[in-house]
Amino acid sequence: MRYLKDLTEGSRVGDIYLIKQRTSAITKNGKNYLNVILQDKTGTIDAKVWEPNSAGIDDFDEKDYVEIVGDVSSYNGALQVSVKRARKAHEGEYDPKDYLPVSEKNIDTMYSELLEIIDRTTNTYLKKLLQTFFVEDEKFIARFKFSSAAKMVHHAFVGGLLEHTLSVTKNCVFFAVQYPKLDRDLLVTAAICHDIGKTAELSPFPENDYTDDGNLLGHIVMGTQMVDEKIRTIEGFPPVLATELKHCILAHHGEYEFGSPKKPALIEAVALNFADDLDAKMETFTELLNKIQDPNQWQGFNRLLDSNIRGTRLE
Amino acid sequence: MRYLKDLTEGSRVGDIYLIKQRTSAITKNGKNYLNVILQDKTGTIDAKVWEPNSAGIDDFDEKDYVEIVGDVSSYNGALQVSVKRARKAHEGEYDPKDYLPVSEKNIDTMYSELLEIIDRTTNTYLKKLLQTFFVEDEKFIARFKFSSAAKMVHHAFVGGLLEHTLSVTKNCVFFAVQYPKLDRDLLVTAAICHDIGKTAELSPFPENDYTDDGNLLGHIVMGTQMVDEKIRTIEGFPPVLATELKHCILAHHGEYEFGSPKKPALIEAVALNFADDLDAKMETFTELLNKIQDPNQWQGFNRLLDSNIRGTRLE
Amino acid sequence: MRYLKDLTEGSRVGDIYLIKQRTSAITKNGKNYLNVILQDKTGTIDAKVWEPNSAGIDDFDEKDYVEIVGDVSSYNGALQVSVKRARKAHEGEYDPKDYLPVSEKNIDTMYSELLEIIDRTTNTYLKKLLQTFFVEDEKFIARFKFSSAAKMVHHAFVGGLLEHTLSVTKNCVFFAVQYPKLDRDLLVTAAICHDIGKTAELSPFPENDYTDDGNLLGHIVMGTQMVDEKIRTIEGFPPVLATELKHCILAHHGEYEFGSPKKPALIEAVALNFADDLDAKMETFTELLNKIQDPNQWQGFNRLLDSNIRGTRLE
Amino acid sequence: MRYLKDLTEGSRVGDIYLIKQRTSAITKNGKNYLNVILQDKTGTIDAKVWEPNSAGIDDFDEKDYVEIVGDVSSYNGALQVSVKRARKAHEGEYDPKDYLPVSEKNIDTMYSELLEIIDRTTNTYLKKLLQTFFVEDEKFIARFKFSSAAKMVHHAFVGGLLEHTLSVTKNCVFFAVQYPKLDRDLLVTAAICHDIGKTAELSPFPENDYTDDGNLLGHIVMGTQMVDEKIRTIEGFPPVLATELKHCILAHHGEYEFGSPKKPALIEAVALNFADDLDAKMETFTELLNKIQDPNQWQGFNRLLDSNIRGTRLE
Amino acid sequence: MRYLKDLTEGSRVGDIYLIKQRTSAITKNGKNYLNVILQDKTGTIDAKVWEPNSAGIDDFDEKDYVEIVGDVSSYNGALQVSVKRARKAHEGEYDPKDYLPVSEKNIDTMYSELLEIIDRTTNTYLKKLLQTFFVEDEKFIARFKFSSAAKMVHHAFVGGLLEHTLSVTKNCVFFAVQYPKLDRDLLVTAAICHDIGKTAELSPFPENDYTDDGNLLGHIVMGTQMVDEKIRTIEGFPPVLATELKHCILAHHGEYEFGSPKKPALIEAVALNFADDLDAKMETFTELLNKIQDPNQWQGFNRLLDSNIRGTRLE
Amino acid sequence: MRYLKDLTEGSRVGDIYLIKQRTSAITKNGKNYLNVILQDKTGTIDAKVWEPNSAGIDDFDEKDYVEIVGDVSSYNGALQVSVKRARKAHEGEYDPKDYLPVSEKNIDTMYSELLEIIDRTTNTYLKKLLQTFFVEDEKFIARFKFSSAAKMVHHAFVGGLLEHTLSVTKNCVFFAVQYPKLDRDLLVTAAICHDIGKTAELSPFPENDYTDDGNLLGHIVMGTQMVDEKIRTIEGFPPVLATELKHCILAHHGEYEFGSPKKPALIEAVALNFADDLDAKMETFTELLNKIQDPNQWQGFNRLLDSNIRGTRLE
Repeated sequence: MRYLKDLTEGSRVGDIYLIKQRTSAITKNGKNYLNVILQDKTGTIDAKVWEPNSAGIDDFDEKDYVEIVGDVSSYNGALQVSVKRARKAHEGEYDPKDYLPVSEKNIDTMYSELLEIIDRTTNTYLKKLLQTFFVEDEKFIARFKFSSAAKMVHHAFVGGLLEHTLSVTKNCVFFAVQYPKLDRDLLVTAAICHDIGKTAELSPFPENDYTDDGNLLGHIVMGTQMVDEKIRTIEGFPPVLATELKHCILAHHGEYEFGSPKKPALIEAVALNFADDLDAKMETFTELLNKIQDPNQWQGFNRLLDSNIRGTRLE
Repeated sequence: MRYLKDLTEGSRVGDIYLIKQRTSAITKNGKNYLNVILQDKTGTIDAKVWEPNSAGIDDFDEKDYVEIVGDVSSYNGALQVSVKRARKAHEGEYDPKDYLPVSEKNIDTMYSELLEIIDRTTNTYLKKLLQTFFVEDEKFIARFKFSSAAKMVHHAFVGGLLEHTLSVTKNCVFFAVQYPKLDRDLLVTAAICHDIGKTAELSPFPENDYTDDGNLLGHIVMGTQMVDEKIRTIEGFPPVLATELKHCILAHHGEYEFGSPKKPALIEAVALNFADDLDAKMETFTELLNKIQDPNQWQGFNRLLDSNIRGTRLE
Repeated sequence: MRYLKDLTEGSRVGDIYLIKQRTSAITKNGKNYLNVILQDKTGTIDAKVWEPNSAGIDDFDEKDYVEIVGDVSSYNGALQVSVKRARKAHEGEYDPKDYLPVSEKNIDTMYSELLEIIDRTTNTYLKKLLQTFFVEDEKFIARFKFSSAAKMVHHAFVGGLLEHTLSVTKNCVFFAVQYPKLDRDLLVTAAICHDIGKTAELSPFPENDYTDDGNLLGHIVMGTQMVDEKIRTIEGFPPVLATELKHCILAHHGEYEFGSPKKPALIEAVALNFADDLDAKMETFTELLNKIQDPNQWQGFNRLLDSNIRGTRLE
Repeated sequence: MRYLKDLTEGSRVGDIYLIKQRTSAITKNGKNYLNVILQDKTGTIDAKVWEPNSAGIDDFDEKDYVEIVGDVSSYNGALQVSVKRARKAHEGEYDPKDYLPVSEKNIDTMYSELLEIIDRTTNTYLKKLLQTFFVEDEKFIARFKFSSAAKMVHHAFVGGLLEHTLSVTKNCVFFAVQYPKLDRDLLVTAAICHDIGKTAELSPFPENDYTDDGNLLGHIVMGTQMVDEKIRTIEGFPPVLATELKHCILAHHGEYEFGSPKKPALIEAVALNFADDLDAKMETFTELLNKIQDPNQWQGFNRLLDSNIRGTRLE
Repeated sequence: MRYLKDLTEGSRVGDIYLIKQRTSAITKNGKNYLNVILQDKTGTIDAKVWEPNSAGIDDFDEKDYVEIVGDVSSYNGALQVSVKRARKAHEGEYDPKDYLPVSEKNIDTMYSELLEIIDRTTNTYLKKLLQTFFVEDEKFIARFKFSSAAKMVHHAFVGGLLEHTLSVTKNCVFFAVQYPKLDRDLLVTAAICHDIGKTAELSPFPENDYTDDGNLLGHIVMGTQMVDEKIRTIEGFPPVLATELKHCILAHHGEYEFGSPKKPALIEAVALNFADDLDAKMETFTELLNKIQDPNQWQGFNRLLDSNIRGTRLE
Repeated sequence: MRYLKDLTEGSRVGDIYLIKQRTSAITKNGKNYLNVILQDKTGTIDAKVWEPNSAGIDDFDEKDYVEIVGDVSSYNGALQVSVKRARKAHEGEYDPKDYLPVSEKNIDTMYSELLEIIDRTTNTYLKKLLQTFFVEDEKFIARFKFSSAAKMVHHAFVGGLLEHTLSVTKNCVFFAVQYPKLDRDLLVTAAICHDIGKTAELSPFPENDYTDDGNLLGHIVMGTQMVDEKIRTIEGFPPVLATELKHCILAHHGEYEFGSPKKPALIEAVALNFADDLDAKMETFTELLNKIQDPNQWQGFNRLLDSNIRGTRLE
């Protein structure tokens, strides 16, 4: 397919795109038309449907995949598509991954790495718990692999939750070697489960926005509850261990003001908070530097990093 | 029985008291003795067992109820008991309520008031939920009536959780009349359930201290989970209503820094936060004024009220 | 009269409106014209006077009531009036309440309720003080009834100060029953007087903006001083009582950072702070939900409530 | 007289001292005695009256001036007086300034300096206001000269309020030269009046503690009101000027969290806040360095200065 | 020359201006043109070069001084220049001070004042240090006189660093008289050197923006290092004195959150912090009042002063 | 030698100990004696020299190593030594490491690890810089190996600075693998140098307290300056690289309120801040758990970790 970022003024477009936004409007002459935003994984473009109810123009909704035929012109310095024909595409005609931001890493490879780490867990109860989620629960696995780790800030793409989780977990595997006081199994299990609540806090792509439950309860409490439910299905799961694991998840934001109802009280909870926060900051910084043309220039104030930043020059 | 607050220098004591603390010590001459703190609902007194392993001195532990025979003297300006005989009492010989701080209000009367309010709930699901806890769950009811609402700050007595809950709930009943936007049933249900997690966050009297789960998870998350579990037993409980109720409980401390993982997002959650905070402050102020001899004097800085305070004089 | 919210494109307007704003401007062709904003209690509309000094166009100022004749057209998606004739109206031709946001509750009814509560005050000095303001001081009464309780946030309408004051007072009446440590008369008097400084902090409608004194001194200090002056006219008013009442007013914002020069040090001051803050938050939330079309949707971050909020659904 | 700091072990004392504290106590043998703290301007000493009701021992109260005859011994490393005789002294037998901490500067000299600055005021209304306080109001003048500027922190001695006020005023005189935007008369008047509320916020020496009004209203509001009252007695005092002066006083702490109900909004209010804060910090630092033996050593964390501090060495 | 603030619609311009900004753009018809902003010390104006590569239009860059011939018209209510001819001017054809915001005070006069203060320093080491910078180091002197004291906030003009430094130093000279505990020489030296790091933190005019080093190290650390380097060239400079001077510079922002790595621990450091902060606030307030037409009106919230402000009226 | 922790009541002591504290005192009978605190690496003990100037009792000072002969008795529940003989020991008679808290890890082994990491640096300038410190500067090396990383909080023992530095560096080596955006050489160099200022901020053991320079300048600025000085000796060191390295050191505390004059603006500075903070928290938690008898018990509030903590139980 021809990606939106490759369109040029004066060319003709004829491909399937995702409808990101669709609103009705009225021209000065009183005629109805549609403002539409087309999306693929390379970006978005404005489009106008000047004759909404004419032949060749199917009715369609936001989040539909629609085959668009039209002309590309320039308006106020930005490209714009005049839509001539619009047809709702059927599932199978398109690959959603062409239309959504997606991890640059291979999702299945990352998942295998995660399973290997799970495999090296020696505590039988924790291993069983991880398997119940990540080996046995098909629906959870599909959702987990497809989720982002955030609406906007960082890892806001398909596979983002997996990529973030794997990276946090690897940090924890290293920490457990470096600091022997840490219990490797508890820490790694907490790392793998720390954000699973995000599969329910955020709606699936292409929406990827806070759900009602997400807004009212939050992924920290939701994830803790998901872990709690699975634990109940595992006979003999030690109750203190269960509480300690749930504590690590509740406390992983590290501070009350970041939404953790408890401050880290166990050494593993402290370590998990670092592993998570480090990965968020590194990824935010990396995404920022990847996005810009001249990383040597100062990038202005970044809210998450709470500083004006620039790429390193080493000269 | 003769209460501790009524003992005088030179008198002899001979009654059953609760052992609040018991530690071994050694005199300058190298002899073992016991430092003991006796407790009843009127206060505490230091006691010494100078001959721990002699005849007439049973072995006993902290939290035991022990019949003490001894002499009351004065040491460094405070009264002290020299224990001559000590015998562990049997259940039935004493009434625990004589030994623990207890609500000045009648627990059963308060409980009836709470049941009446539950009775006036019209939403069938919320009413059923409340009944499942407060009418049907015997074990929960017993624990709820016996709990305090805090380790120390306010309502730190037997029946304190009930007294606080009833008072918060009455505030909410009034608010729902005063502010018609509030849904009375949701608000009242949230009020009645808002602190039920405290039955597990604090251990039962006479200990009344944070449990391990209390320290690691906290009553906000624990209470939310208790509500969640009961809701699952109620067929057809509307899912959004369930989330909204849980949100009110999660958000009832009002601020992240007070341990709520979510800020109040529903008007009922805002109202509940006020009802709870108001009752805590009023009771703290009231307990403080009741405790002191001259309420007209300035009482110094109070941490919860964040101010130097005094009783009102109206002169 | 025909309200602004009922105007439609292509219709003709011919009614008296309040001039909210009036500024001179110049067309690209160098001709003078006027940008005007018309206001009534249902909203505002832009208007243009293309021939300012022609026949039939009176000169007028901001805050004048002006009879406007003109045509309604649509420009950039919003309605606009082309003014053909403009005549300054005389007092009596219009009812100010048609032009200003006004309480939905009946002002006289609310005032009667307030007087009843004053009537039930038993402390003779406090009762006398209240009567001096609310029964005897005609000028104050008129100003009080006409004031808003804020420039923008909540109760920003004619009668808003009365509505807020009554509601806070009712909260206090209830609190005095619920918490016997509270002195009902002191608390209720403080509640009724807590915001009287707003009659001078804000200018009268239609301006309803901070006065110079309001900006430099604030309603807390101004109200305290107003109370102080009246007290001096009451022989034998107990000095400690006077100080305690003034303290309640000074401390009613509860925190230094909200402009109270003293933190609540008396139990009545604590209660008043709750009653006031609760009413502000409930009204803010209510006004917000009333204003929006779909209260079930998330409304975004609200600054006063410090949270993303939505209406309760109960489903 | 022989000052307390000059007493030595084994000597005999026979002079008039101020009774700072007096409490009854009981020996182990059950006998009554008195714990007394004697004070003069050089410090305090513990004293015991072993035979309170015997001949030669007058009854006396705290804050009395009492002639004490007794022996000085050492107990637990500190000196102590055994009182043999005690006689209440009459006014005239002693000079209060020997018993209270007092400014090292001459009070009358400082007052003259203040009057000269007042004299150079050209605005007739402000000059009149200052004279009404500092020339005409005998009672105020006496109280003002005798007051401290604080209970403890800095300038906590007789004449301290005058010394602090003069110093702040001199800072302001300089600022008005340095920064021409400042109105010299408004700034200087505000400086001279900024802390006059302290004459009522603190009780007179020897108590020098917060009064009831001080605790409930604070010197900022009290001083503003004192200024307001005097202004009313001056015919034609311009109302905006009055408000601006009161604003400067209200805002002189600079921040809400330091008890100012308004932030400085006028340039004179900003300048006054600096002049006041600077003098407080300089005096605190100076008193601290004067008090210590080796100012070159680190003095530990000082709360007002919010830092570990030491004297400057210049080596 | 004819200053930009004096241009009128319909006139013709023909003078040398500084190019503040230059960006290429494309008309709707696809033709290239240039958006240019011309600057002189009285302000800026938009200009368009419709035929960029035509005869008479030299190529030029931002920060060039260019002779512009063109017509002044009005567009959207603002003036605009249509550039007909453009020629890069040679050094010598223009005086940079006509194009940059510049102190209203005479730079050489201010510098003489500074030298006089340096001259009155009695400590030989400190005097030598000051002379090494301000008498001997030609390059430093040139840079110091030409620098601003800030990118935007206050003293953001040529000579601003000198003006601010002189003013802070005069404050310190006064403080040293007023508070004898202060060492005049240490304080004055620290005042004169406190912001010298700004000569490297900000690039020279016309850019006047943070340098790379400025962003990464900051003027506090850079200035401390500059002082340190000069001190090493002075034989026998007492090491403690060196450390105390560097401390004053490091701590002159007074608070960690304002970028000082140390809190003031010496009385001179406390005084310097006041002198600096006072001057910044007075100048900010003064610049603000000078800029506005009606200083009696409220000016809205000012971030540095953290308050809504207005000019003083005195009526 | 016989360590202090192994002394028992009634035994006799005869070994060399470090004098931690020595103060003169007077008995009730007026005789001089000495209060002394003896120290070895296992702890401290109180000692009394009852006959300070008698035969067999050498004069000695704090920080001397003194051979003590005496009797161990028990006083108020703690052991105490009555010193009979005291003789100042000569260097060589004792091994300082027996008397100071010392790393449990081998200092030379750790140093070799550090050198290996330095060896793997590929950037020639950074490698040269590290060698200049850690291979060539004998005096620095000796001081670095002997230093602690703190006065009290964590790593407060001989070798502590090396142990902390190595651990932070290993974290960084791992981070550079995990996050490819990080420049390994810059990050590792910054890690190795980040706390070298502590060799001058703290005095050598046994004192191990803040030096005057440490208090006035702090290790962040001191270390940056040490790096700056060495860089000047390396020809051709790239200036931007130098600034970036210094920035990482300046910013390694991450927040202004922790004493960093700059927030991390480079990704390596962000990573270093995490590596350092993580190691501090892990070591603090580990030292705490090692110190206590029952790690499963709640340990109370820890200031650095800002939480009540306990060891992990996994049951």
